[in-house]
Amino acid sequence: MATRHSDPTEKTTGRARGGRRSACPVACTLDLVGDRWTLLVVRDLLLGKSRFGDFLQSSEGIPTNILTERLKRLEEAGLITTSQYSEHPPRYEYHLTPEGRELAPIVRAVAKWGLAHLPETRALQPILD
Amino acid sequence: MATRHSDPTEKTTGRARGGRRSACPVACTLDLVGDRWTLLVVRDLLLGKSRFGDFLQSSEGIPTNILTERLKRLEEAGLITTSQYSEHPPRYEYHLTPEGRELAPIVRAVAKWGLAHLPETRALQPILD
Repeated sequence: MATRHSDPTEKTTGRARGGRRSACPVACTLDLVGDRWTLLVVRDLLLGKSRFGDFLQSSEGIPTNILTERLKRLEEAGLITTSQYSEHPPRYEYHLTPEGRELAPIVRAVAKWGLAHLPETRALQPILD
Repeated sequence: MATRHSDPTEKTTGRARGGRRSACPVACTLDLVGDRWTLLVVRDLLLGKSRFGDFLQSSEGIPTNILTERLKRLEEAGLITTSQYSEHPPRYEYHLTPEGRELAPIVRAVAKWGLAHLPETRALQPILD
C-alpha cells in the first residue's frame, strides 16, 4: 500500500492505533470503523464504487471533508488501497484490501438489523446476498 | 453534490430519528448505534451488566456524561428498558429489550473482525459463542 498520508494525529472521533482503549476486540474495531460514516464508505466500496465522486453521490450526502478524512483513515489502517488514475487533474481510485473486504459481515449484520427493525429501510442488493 | 439533508442540525455523534439520512438499513442503523461507545454499552449489557456503575467500570473508561446520554438514546430507541431498583438514592437498572438483544450479531461480527485482524485484542467469552 502506498501511503500518501503519514500524519498519525488521532482524531477524537477516530481510531487510536497506538492508544487502544482496551484489549477488547469490539472496542479496538470500533476505534477504526465505529462512527456514522466509515461503514457507509465501506458499504459503497463493497457495492463496487471506487471513486471520490461515486461516494459523494450516495444518498446520505457525505460531506467532502469527512469523506477525505475517512478515506485517509481507512488507508492508514490498511483497509483500502489508493491508486492514481488521472494525473491532470490528479484523481484516485480506492479499493478494499482483503482485510477491508472482511468487514462485509459487519456491514451485513448492521443492514440485517436495520431491515428487521426499522420499517422505513429498504434492502441493498449485492452485499446482502 | 446534492445534499439531501432537510435537517442539517443532526448531531455529529448522533442518530437522527426523524431525519434519516437515507432509506439504507446500514445508514439508519448507524444513526442509532454508529459511534465509538454505544455498541460497547450493548456489549456490556449482553455480558450481563445492568447498572450504571458496572458500565463505568469497563476497561474503556466511558465518561459518565457519555454513558448517561447513550443510555438515554438506547431507551428512546426502544433498545433498553430502565427500572428503578433503589429509591434513596434513586438508582436504575438497564436491560436489553428483545430488539436490543438482536444487536448481538453486530457486536459478534465486530468482535470477530477485531480478533482476526488486530493482534493485540483478546476474546470476550460469553457473547462470542
